[in-house]
Formats: sequence, structure tokens, C-alpha cells
Amino acid sequence: MATEIGLFEAMYSQRALRRLKPDAVSDKLVHQLIEAATQAPSGGNRQPWAFVVIRSPATKAKLGGWYLDAWNKTYGALSDEQRAQFRGSMARVYASAEYLAQHFGEVPVLILVCLRDAPPPGGFLAASHYGSVFPAVQNLLLAARGLGLGATLTTLHKLHDAEVKELVGLPEQVETIELIPVGYPVGKYGPTNRVPVDEVMHLERWDAAKA
Amino acid sequence: MATEIGLFEAMYSQRALRRLKPDAVSDKLVHQLIEAATQAPSGGNRQPWAFVVIRSPATKAKLGGWYLDAWNKTYGALSDEQRAQFRGSMARVYASAEYLAQHFGEVPVLILVCLRDAPPPGGFLAASHYGSVFPAVQNLLLAARGLGLGATLTTLHKLHDAEVKELVGLPEQVETIELIPVGYPVGKYGPTNRVPVDEVMHLERWDAAKA
Repeated sequence: MATEIGLFEAMYSQRALRRLKPDAVSDKLVHQLIEAATQAPSGGNRQPWAFVVIRSPATKAKLGGWYLDAWNKTYGALSDEQRAQFRGSMARVYASAEYLAQHFGEVPVLILVCLRDAPPPGGFLAASHYGSVFPAVQNLLLAARGLGLGATLTTLHKLHDAEVKELVGLPEQVETIELIPVGYPVGKYGPTNRVPVDEVMHLERWDAAKA
Repeated sequence: MATEIGLFEAMYSQRALRRLKPDAVSDKLVHQLIEAATQAPSGGNRQPWAFVVIRSPATKAKLGGWYLDAWNKTYGALSDEQRAQFRGSMARVYASAEYLAQHFGEVPVLILVCLRDAPPPGGFLAASHYGSVFPAVQNLLLAARGLGLGATLTTLHKLHDAEVKELVGLPEQVETIELIPVGYPVGKYGPTNRVPVDEVMHLERWDAAKA
């Protein structure tokens, strides 16, 4: 892999890409995304993840319908007045999210990331539960960046979770985590808007003078 | 960054490194780790993460004491018979985890990763809550790999969570997520033991023939 992208270049230019071309994404690329995901650490190396790769137009159409319904009931339900308050990058993010909602069923590949374990009853185990799948999700997103693909994290399917699980035949105890649309991007990679390190890094104590 | 490590090389050789040298880790490197973490996506780009960087020997000694106590009450409480059942890589992982427990207070830097948001009351929001910090955690681990540092995820401090929070002055609503020991590794990077992709990838449906 002499010509592969650099690690830091990938991390610093990875961003949500929600406008995707209809061009097919090969099985090989999808396999590379998921293999990269499985390299991530998990608690006790349990590797509790699973990935459902969806290309069927009929299945995507159903998922797209539920996604749009969920969008319309949440972010899409904003008034014109509320929308007008978005400025700059916020306005662009909102527009791209709306575009995705309207074209969700048309993206080449949807990857449903799942946790095979049942969710914990609550308390401090929740962090280690979800902490055993989101590092894999991040590897998948970075791999998409490295392979020239666009992707973004979505959870709106959760408003139709029981129907989604039935559609793809998930056992009861399997939890859906993210539904990731993947395709060749229309837009460009990074940079991203982030708060500076000094505002989130504390030296020794929370209430210490900032770095 | 012409000479930086490749993305896939980093992902495929990142593994938990629990035996760390006492050699100092520079402020610049710690800053690079945390800046890489902050490049990760988060729900609504809220960036709810925070990082407490701990180098003080007194603070590390207290954290190390609580960590060892938690180890002794959990994994360290196994009988000789139970330990003897570990074979191969499992035995090596256990031995390195035990080593870390006994030397936790001596590592050069501890990074306490926190969520500034209060945890959600439960239900499907938990995934998006933790999903807004673990991608950053994975970026931090990959950056450590890329910079030649060793690190691993630990959560045993949770058995003394109230004391940990008081020690570093965390406000009540701030949640501790992972306490990451960082230093130059004694051991070597990857490869890791992972289940093959075909066993965790499902095509179209959960119950479909495997890829």
C-alpha cells in the first residue's frame, strides 16, 4: 500500500459527505471498509459488531421511506423561520442533510452497523457497550475517506427501528447502531470545523487554567 | 507530513499496548493526540468531548491505587485454576493487563476522556450519546500508533468513579468515559486477532447465506 493516504491526512479531511453519486461501489471496496472496521479494539476483544450490507433497491426504497418520514417528523419539521436562522456552514449542513433525506433510498450501498450483544440494563456498562462498536464505526469512516468514498453517520432509522429490524431479519437481541450511506461523493473532503484543542484539554484538573 | 504512517497501516497494526516505558512524552505529542481526537465526527457536530491530561505523580499514584484495587476486585480475583485456563494470546493479554494494573500510576501520561453532556435517561439516545465520543477515542488511539506511542482503553476507574471525579474536579454532569495510559511501548504494534469479515458481514439480510 505504498500509495495509500496518510493517517493524519485522512483524519483531518474526513467529514460527513451526504451527497452521493449513483455510481456503483464494488464489493471489494465494501469488504475493505468492513475489514478496516473490524481492526478496531473492543472490550475484551469481544468484537460484538455485525454489518448488514444493503444494495437491494426494494430494501433501500423501504429504508429510504422510513428515513424520510423520520426526517419530516424531526429536523424536516422546522418552520421557514427556524430554517432561516441557519447561517454559513450550518445552512450547508442542513441543506445536505435534507438532500440525503430525500435521496436516502437511492444511495448505492447502505451499511447497517449492529451490536450483537443486548444493550446493558443501564449504569456504567453502557459506555463499554457502545465503546465496543464506535471505534469500529470510526475506522469504517476513515477507510471510506481513504478509498475515495463518501459516508456519514445516521440514526434516524431508529424512529422505525422495529420495522427496520424485521425488514432485514435481525434477531431481537441485536441492536441497530448506525445506518451508513456509502457512495462516491459529489462534494469534497474536509477540513472540518472544530473547537480548538485548548478549549477541550484540561491540565491535571478540570478547573485548572486552560493549556 | 510526507513521511507519516499510512492510514491502513495504522489501522491494521494498532493494538492495545499495556507495557509502557517511563520515558517522558512531550506536550507536543499529547497535543497532537488530542487534536486528532477532535477531528472525529459527533452528533450534530456538538463535540461533547473533554480531555484531562494527568502527569502529576501524586494524582497518578491515587489513580493507580484505585485502578489496582478495581483490578484486584475483578479480573485480578481469578483463582490460579481460572488463570491456568488462559492459553496463547489470551494468556499474554491477561499478563499484560496485570502488569498495567500493577504499574498504572507510573505511566508517563494518563488521559481521562470525558463527555460534557449528562448521560441520556435511557433508550435509543444512548447510542448517539456514546457515539459522539468513541470515534474521537479511536482517532486518539490511531494517532498514538502513528506517533510511535502505546496506549490502551481502560474503564476500571469506574469502580471508583466518584473519587476520580472529585480528584480532578469534574463537575457532576461530566461523565468519565475512558482513562487512557500513554507512553512509549515496550512491546510491538499489531497485527491483531480478529474474526474474519465474512463472519460478521451479512448481505441484504441477517439470515442470508454469508458472503
